[in-house]
This record gives sequence, C-alpha cells and structure tokens, in this order.
Amino acid sequence: MAGDLLNIEGEDTARKSWHLRQFIKQCQDSFSVLEKCLKPVIAAVHGACIGGGIDMITACDIRLCTHDAWFQVKEVDIGLAADVGTLQRLPKVIGNRSLVCELAYTGRKMMSDEAHCCGLISQIFQDKDSMMDGAFELASEIASKSPVAVQGTKRNLLYSRDHTIQDSLEYMAAWNMSMLQTDDVVKSAGAVMQKKTSKEVTFSKL
Amino acid sequence: MAGDLLNIEGEDTARKSWHLRQFIKQCQDSFSVLEKCLKPVIAAVHGACIGGGIDMITACDIRLCTHDAWFQVKEVDIGLAADVGTLQRLPKVIGNRSLVCELAYTGRKMMSDEAHCCGLISQIFQDKDSMMDGAFELASEIASKSPVAVQGTKRNLLYSRDHTIQDSLEYMAAWNMSMLQTDDVVKSAGAVMQKKTSKEVTFSKL
Amino acid sequence: MAGDLLNIEGEDTARKSWHLRQFIKQCQDSFSVLEKCLKPVIAAVHGACIGGGIDMITACDIRLCTHDAWFQVKEVDIGLAADVGTLQRLPKVIGNRSLVCELAYTGRKMMSDEAHCCGLISQIFQDKDSMMDGAFELASEIASKSPVAVQGTKRNLLYSRDHTIQDSLEYMAAWNMSMLQTDDVVKSAGAVMQKKTSKEVTFSKL
Amino acid sequence: MAGDLLNIEGEDTARKSWHLRQFIKQCQDSFSVLEKCLKPVIAAVHGACIGGGIDMITACDIRLCTHDAWFQVKEVDIGLAADVGTLQRLPKVIGNRSLVCELAYTGRKMMSDEAHCCGLISQIFQDKDSMMDGAFELASEIASKSPVAVQGTKRNLLYSRDHTIQDSLEYMAAWNMSMLQTDDVVKSAGAVMQKKTSKEVTFSKL
Amino acid sequence: MAGDLLNIEGEDTARKSWHLRQFIKQCQDSFSVLEKCLKPVIAAVHGACIGGGIDMITACDIRLCTHDAWFQVKEVDIGLAADVGTLQRLPKVIGNRSLVCELAYTGRKMMSDEAHCCGLISQIFQDKDSMMDGAFELASEIASKSPVAVQGTKRNLLYSRDHTIQDSLEYMAAWNMSMLQTDDVVKSAGAVMQKKTSKEVTFSKL
Amino acid sequence: MAGDLLNIEGEDTARKSWHLRQFIKQCQDSFSVLEKCLKPVIAAVHGACIGGGIDMITACDIRLCTHDAWFQVKEVDIGLAADVGTLQRLPKVIGNRSLVCELAYTGRKMMSDEAHCCGLISQIFQDKDSMMDGAFELASEIASKSPVAVQGTKRNLLYSRDHTIQDSLEYMAAWNMSMLQTDDVVKSAGAVMQKKTSKEVTFSKL
Repeated sequence: MAGDLLNIEGEDTARKSWHLRQFIKQCQDSFSVLEKCLKPVIAAVHGACIGGGIDMITACDIRLCTHDAWFQVKEVDIGLAADVGTLQRLPKVIGNRSLVCELAYTGRKMMSDEAHCCGLISQIFQDKDSMMDGAFELASEIASKSPVAVQGTKRNLLYSRDHTIQDSLEYMAAWNMSMLQTDDVVKSAGAVMQKKTSKEVTFSKL
Repeated sequence: MAGDLLNIEGEDTARKSWHLRQFIKQCQDSFSVLEKCLKPVIAAVHGACIGGGIDMITACDIRLCTHDAWFQVKEVDIGLAADVGTLQRLPKVIGNRSLVCELAYTGRKMMSDEAHCCGLISQIFQDKDSMMDGAFELASEIASKSPVAVQGTKRNLLYSRDHTIQDSLEYMAAWNMSMLQTDDVVKSAGAVMQKKTSKEVTFSKL
Repeated sequence: MAGDLLNIEGEDTARKSWHLRQFIKQCQDSFSVLEKCLKPVIAAVHGACIGGGIDMITACDIRLCTHDAWFQVKEVDIGLAADVGTLQRLPKVIGNRSLVCELAYTGRKMMSDEAHCCGLISQIFQDKDSMMDGAFELASEIASKSPVAVQGTKRNLLYSRDHTIQDSLEYMAAWNMSMLQTDDVVKSAGAVMQKKTSKEVTFSKL
Repeated sequence: MAGDLLNIEGEDTARKSWHLRQFIKQCQDSFSVLEKCLKPVIAAVHGACIGGGIDMITACDIRLCTHDAWFQVKEVDIGLAADVGTLQRLPKVIGNRSLVCELAYTGRKMMSDEAHCCGLISQIFQDKDSMMDGAFELASEIASKSPVAVQGTKRNLLYSRDHTIQDSLEYMAAWNMSMLQTDDVVKSAGAVMQKKTSKEVTFSKL
Repeated sequence: MAGDLLNIEGEDTARKSWHLRQFIKQCQDSFSVLEKCLKPVIAAVHGACIGGGIDMITACDIRLCTHDAWFQVKEVDIGLAADVGTLQRLPKVIGNRSLVCELAYTGRKMMSDEAHCCGLISQIFQDKDSMMDGAFELASEIASKSPVAVQGTKRNLLYSRDHTIQDSLEYMAAWNMSMLQTDDVVKSAGAVMQKKTSKEVTFSKL
Repeated sequence: MAGDLLNIEGEDTARKSWHLRQFIKQCQDSFSVLEKCLKPVIAAVHGACIGGGIDMITACDIRLCTHDAWFQVKEVDIGLAADVGTLQRLPKVIGNRSLVCELAYTGRKMMSDEAHCCGLISQIFQDKDSMMDGAFELASEIASKSPVAVQGTKRNLLYSRDHTIQDSLEYMAAWNMSMLQTDDVVKSAGAVMQKKTSKEVTFSKL
C-alpha cells in the first residue's frame, strides 16, 4: 500500500488515513503556494513533464515549452487518482474536457503540439535555449510593469476562476477602489503618452 | 492618481475610495447590460480592440472579427488591473488560461489568427464588409427563430456559466415547464416537417 | 404546444407545468446517469449527432468521431431552449464560448474538423471502423488500469468541474486518504518497474 | 471496526472504504427522501429521539414533541462522527451553534424545553395523545390548502436553504411564472372573500 | 388565474409566463431595494403584518414591534407560494426552521411574543408610541456613528449572509484596506477617550 | 487614519492599502486558527467581552459565560466596520439577524441573559468559579471521547456551515468511508454495552 511505501503508520485504518490526509494536504499546499505567490509564475518545460510535473505547471500562471516537451498524467499507471492538483486544475486550464479525461484515464503521452493546440501551453519554442530566453524576456517584461497592476491582476484572475462573474466584479470593485489610487497610473499614462515602454519607468516596490 | 484624473474627490481616503467604487460599479454595469439584454448580442471587430473594447466584447454572446483585427488587454500598461469585466469574463470565454495570463500581464497584442485559435472569436472574415454581411446574416438568422427558444437559450447559457451542472439543470427544468407551452413548438416542428426554414415562419413577439 | 405533443395534461396551467417539469427532469436524469456511471463512458460518433445526441455525448467522459461526423444543437429550430443538458454541459466541455452561443442560437451544423478544433472531440478517425477499433482499444486500455485509480479519477474530475479549486483539493484529500491504501499501488508500481504494461497486471474488481 | 460490525468486506482498505461509502450514501439517501417527498413531513416525537432519530427529524419540515421527549446526538459515544444528516442539517435547523457543538461533542441529552427554546421544536404538547391530535390537526390543515401553493412552498424553502438570496429569488420567479397560472388562486381568493376556510374548498390533485 | 387577476396577457402560455416573470421580478426588486439602500433600514410593526408585509420586513435590517403586533405568511391561503422574499429571507432571519415551515404551510398568525422569542423581532414595545420613540432613538443613534463604519457594516453583513466565512473574510479585507483610511477612526477614537458619545462628534457625509 | 495609528506606511494610497490588507488578513488568521485547531475550543466568558473578544469567541466551538458577562460589538464606535470575524461569523452563530444588526450598528451592550436567549451562549453559570469548573468538566468530557469521532465531528460541522446539505453529505461520506474503520467504534460500542462511561475507556491518540 502507498501508506507503507510512504512509511505512514497508524494504530488502525482511521488513524492511518488521518495521517495520509495530512500528508496529501501538505503536498497539495506545496503546489498551491505557486498561486499564493503574489507575483506571476512562469513554467518553462523541456523534455518530460510527468505526474507531479503536471501538478506543478497547472498551478503556474503561464506555461511555455519546447518542441521536444511532452506531458503525462501518470498517476493512473501507479494505481491512484492524481491528488495534488492535476484533476482539479487541468480542466480549468485547457478547453477540451474530453482530452483531459483521456489523458487522466490512460496516462498517455501528449506531445508539445497537442499541448499547444489544446491550450495547456501558450507558446512553443524551438529548443531549450530559445525558450529560456523567451521566458526571461517575458518575466522581465512583466517585471517592468506596475506591481500594483500586475499583482492585482493575478489576484483577481485567481478570484474569478472560482467565483461567479457577479461575485468577481464585486470583489474587483472593492479591490480597485483603493488600488486605483496609485501614482503608477500617472507614471504609466505619462509613459504611454511619451511613447516610452514600461521598462523606461520605475515603479516603487509593493 | 486615477482618482484625480477621474476628478473623484473625497474628504479622506475612505470617502474617495467609496466614490471610486461607485464609479467602477457604474462602468461595470454599463458592460453587464449586454448580458442583461434579453436578445443575443453579436460583436463584430475590425482593427484595434483595446482595453474597454475587450471588456465589451467578452460581455457579448458571439464574437466575429476581420483578419486585420487585433486585441489587447491594455490596462496593465496604464498601471491598473482591468476592472470592468476582462479579468472576470475572458477566462470563461476562451480555453487557454496560460494565454489569458500572458495577455493580461504583458498587454501584448493578439492578432486575429491567435484570437480565433484560442476561441475568443468564432469566425474570421476577409474584410470589414464581408464581416458585416456575415454579422447581419447571423443576426437575421437568429432573429428568424422562435424568441421563446432564443431568449430562453441566452438566459440559460448565462445561468449555467455561473452555476453547477445540477443547479443549472434544475433551473432549466423550472424554466421550461412553462416555456415548452408555446405555439412556437408546433409552428417550428411544422416548418421542419415541411422543410421550410425558420425565416418562412412568423413567431409572435415576446 | 409541446405539452400536447407530449400528451401531458393538467387541469390548469400550473398542473400541466408541474407534470412537464417531472417529465423534463426524467429526461435530464436519463442523460445524467452517464455521469453517475462509476466507470468512464466513451462516445463514438459517426454521421449525424443532433439534439438529444449532443445532450448525450456532452454527458460522456471522452468523445471520438469520424471525419464524416457532424453536430447540431437542433432545439432552437423546434422552438425550444435545449433543456436536458446541452446548454449546461457544452460550455464546460469546450473552450470557445462564442461558438457555443452561435451553435445554440442558430442550430447550424458543425463539421468534425471544427468539433475537433474547438475541443468537443479529442480524436478524429478516418471512418467508422477505425473509430470503433480506436474506441475499443481506448476502452480496453482504461479497463486494464486499476479500478481504484480510474473510478477515483472520474469521481474527482466531475467534482472539480462544479467546485472551486480549494473545495476540490479538500474533497480529493478526504477521498484519497483511504483510496491510497490499496494493493493496486504496489502492483502498479511493480509493473512500472518491471516495464510491464497495465494489461499484464490483474487488479481485483471494485 | 464498524466495517466488521456491518459485515462490509473488501480485498484491501480502498475497496472496503469504497463499499462503506456506498453504504453510507444509501443510509443518507434513506433520510434525504423526506426532503424529496413533495409534501411537507411532520415529525412528532415522544420519549427518546437518539442518533438516527435526530438524522430523521432534522430532514423533516416541522418538528413537534411532548414534554417528556428528549434528544441525543449519540454517535460520538460509539466512536464515530454522525454521518447521515445530523451534522449537516442540525446547524441549519436551530439558531444556536454553540449548542449544536455541545450536543455533538458530548452526546448529552437535551430535554424538550431546551429543544423548544433553541428552535429544534416549534410546538410542545402535554402528552403523546394531545401531540398526535395536534400533529394530525396540523397535517389536515396543510392538506386542505392548495397543493400548488404548499408543494411550491416546500420546494422553494429547501432551495433557499442552500442558495444565496439572489439565486433563490431568481429560481422562485422561474417557478411561479407558471405556478401562478392556477385555478387555485381564484378558488382561494374567493374563499377568503367569502370568509370560508380552506377546508371548505376543494383543490384538484397535483 | 393570477395572470387574469393581474391582467397579464400573452398569446400563449409561454408568453404569459414570460410576462408574469417580469412582473414577479419587479415586485421582488421593489423589496430588495431595502437591502441595496446604503443605510440601515428599521422596520417598526404594530397591528397586522401580513403577506407582503413579511416580504418587506425580512428585507429590512432591524425589526421592532409592539405587543399587539402579529405576523402572518398569508400567501398559502390565496393559493400560491410566497414569491417576493419571504421564503428566501425568513429562514435566514430567524433560528427555528420548523417554525418557518409551520408558518409558511399553514398561514397561521404568530403573535409578538413568539416573534420575539424566535428572533424575527429584536425588541418589543408596549405600544405604538413607545415603539416609534424607540425606533427613532435607535435610528438617531445609528445616524450619529461614522457613516464609513455603519455602511461598511451593512454591506459586509449582507455579503457574509450569502457567502462562506472564508469568502466573507476575504471580501472584508479588500473592503477595509481602504475604508480604514478614514479620519472617522481618529475622530471616533478621540471621542471614546474623551468619554464623549458619538452624537457629540460630527462625521462628514459619505 | 487607522493606517497612521497602526504605523502602516506606503508611498501612495494603493501601497498603503496593500499593507493594510496584509495586516488585516494576519489578524483574521489569528482568530481563524481556532477553527483550524483540530480539537474543539471552548470559550468561557466573564465580565466584558468587547470588539476583538467577539471576534475570538465566535471562532470558538462552544461558548459559556457567567451571569455578569456582557458582550459588545464595539468597532462601530471607533469608526470602522468590524473586520476580523464578527460580521462574518456572528450571524451564523445566533438565530436572530435583527439583533445582530442592532448590535453591530449601535455597539450597545448585550447582557448575558440576552446572549443566552439569542443563542450566542449555550450555558450560563452563576460565577466565574462555577463556570471554570463547568468548562473544564465539559472539556474533560469531550476529551474522554474517541478522537476520531470528536475531530471528525468538528471538521464536518465546519464544512457543513459553508456548503449546501448535499455537498456536506457527500464530503461526510468520503470522510467516514475511512474513519469508520477504527477500533474506537468497537471500544465505544463495548463500553456502551457494559454501561461504562467514555472516561473508563482509553483511545489511542490521533
């Protein structure tokens, strides 16, 4: 049993289950921190992304990969339902529920093209080097923007994933009634008018 | 600050925030009416669709565009998190969450092909004229159908976006227990049997 | 009226509506059982899939089709809003809301290519024979896996569709604290290490 | 273990758990049918109401008791968390959460006075005979009303327990747009004007 | 039928239902504005409070009454399920679900003592004059407090009624991150330290 | 401003608000841990329970008090909406919404009798000593029960507060499918049959 493999003990099944649940929740939390991170997180995948890899990248904000990357929801092959994020996040990340099921029931490999086509990945790169360049370029682009804007965007994108449109608009209004009162708006608007890029403007830390 | 730009005053930050919230909610409502409109709304985009443009088209039911159209979630560039619909609706409109994040964090342009591929747009047209023809053709096609069917469809599509499958089925059953009692069913079924199109049938106004 | 066509009677409109609602709910349930089925259900479509056909396949887990397949949300053409699953499930199955609306408001045919591209279908086959082979191959592949893993996957995929990420992770932890305590994990892990396929392992019935 | 007592077997813990879950759900369903019953259900309690008794009466619509009645959430005393309704329904039935916790953690007896005071019971009677008279009188009173009104009331009271006010109002509007179209309104209004009681009016069966 | 009484017409049942729904929603909205009112609303009841009266007072924030007041959910007696607020709000206002059901199914009168005991009313007064004095005293007390505090309290009490604790805390944090930035805190804290009542402090309008 | 009092700084209003939000959330968390605590928490109140005191006791499971205790939602008097739990939890803890509003809008004192009557408190004691005895007696009673039963009860009571009945039953079934597999059931059942109290049985730690 997984309990044995994991060295989880307990005087009876209930107690063993209790400890297993604590363990599962710890693992879940170790991926969910990617969402709690105030700043956007970019996943850059080359080669194999298997099992926990899928759990991890679906908790990221943006996913890039190389042509040689492939993806595999492997858990079914080791006798268990994926329990630290994949079954929860993957269907909200891509727009093909039939494919999600197929991947999760069979554990088959999905190559980079299909991953791009189905929406798991937003950009494919020729090789690892160009991907890393692209990822850093993207990160630096995002980092150059107003942190009030970027971090508020992340928080509200996550909020709206789990709420109705009306609730999400309501939350957004409560959020921005203070966040609009930032000097970043004036700085950014000024930059736009002067045709500067955001990299030419300095925003205070948040 | 945006508050200054917007000429929103208040004796202290709380009061200023209160008025900003009223203002944001008014703006939100001015886009949400597109969903409250009983009839389907078609957005036809050519050229640039930026910032508030994205807020508007994501609140529409159907989105068409020309080859030269491009789309930009611009708010991040002026120092704010988009707060009148984009962050709430865009992720429920398209099937690529990584792309939503990328667009919202960077404000980069998305060209029509990518917009079509990701599902923001359901049809691309060669140019503005053919798009307008297509849009009017589509509108007239929809307008020719039973209003009981079309408006009930819109209401229930919006309902199911924000509810569980079970709640949505339950609501649908409460809805159709009266809406099925319409002469339009007999008229429509008759037309189908006589191989007429819906344009050859007249339905009473709703 | 549909009530007459369906031979549903009642002494007044309220009573007639009451009986219509019972009838609609019965029809809904007859499709929802596909989700209640503990094992994954694969839909294999060739030729026309119309009206109730869409209700049925959107309640399945995986959707395959042939090149000659086409799909039609037909209800609008007979004067009613689709009420037994399509308007509820289709938008959660594919990643193009504009297309969902277009199909539901116009009743136009969608050919297999578009169905594949938008994510309704995860695999297209040349013809019926190759599709049936593919479907049986897929079914047999899934059937060879641990039933604890496969059925737990189905249950949790359905759960996460209708809940927030946090609720879904919480449920998953409660689920797997017992389900991880299965001999299938040891058997499966052993097979992987010995480079056996799951078809070479026998799992007890669930 | 309860599994042994209940004669539930399984080749490993996962399979045993799976069967236990089926068993628990069956038990839950056997109480939930009281809510699915289209007509209001009255619980009349004398003497002891223990464990499953609490599960049962909290699934009823109206609760009456005699002075000698007492109530006990007994499950904690036999080593388990109450799992077929009490922990779910009791807190939504009475208005004293501290008391709910106290009862559930200690398994202490609650006498009829406290049960009345906290809102578990809406009427106390001197003895069993007067209670049964009261219960039948109440049932006959309810049975004399329009079934369209009574059953619609039950359905919507249950709906609003589990939904927001706005969702509940929305559902109610969809419900009553047909249910108001009943002859019972005219009959009832007529009776009220003629100062007749509802027992002097006959409503068609629903 | 109610439709006839209400002079609501339509060419078929569906259209008539459609108009009835518009009418019901208008009525619902006419009570829900009491919740949308930014300031607390106090209901002061003497004599009979019947049908629409219950709809109205359950949408208020605070309910007072005289000893001679009585309450009646009358709709069942005129053949319909109460559809403009009572069935939705009453169960969330008082802590005795059994009583809510009894009142709604039988239409029996509830006298002021029972209304106070069950939590519908928070204060009973000897007669109308003392109640009106009490109500105005209460209103003036509330009006003397910081509007930032009072209106923020109303908004968040309503929000938490319809959301989970966690969602409500999250919303509250977004709300108060700006609302704490008010001069009212300093003014109020100063008044408390100087043992002044809030009536001796003047707060700016909101 | 509270921000100044709290020494919270920021270069602009947005940044100051951001830090205030972090601070509010920290405060909220410091009370929410009482719910995260696996074991039941009993609040024993004598004398004044004001402001943060209400936040704290509403996050506890059971509330006791002495006759001389009184309760005050004080925040409104210092110019702010209570933001670390009271407005969120109090309405779900007691069964008199009118009273909740009154207390929150006016900051008036509520004496122990009213607190007991409205359901905030489940037991009143003569004085502090008898209350402390009662509290320890209660704690020791709960501590003598099976931890599998007690902690499972707490978890599921909290779960059902924030979910529908159906979701809560579903979660409970997933929970107990393993938790019923405990030796505590046999031990407890044995004790009951031998007319022993739970204090005469020893359960393993959880």
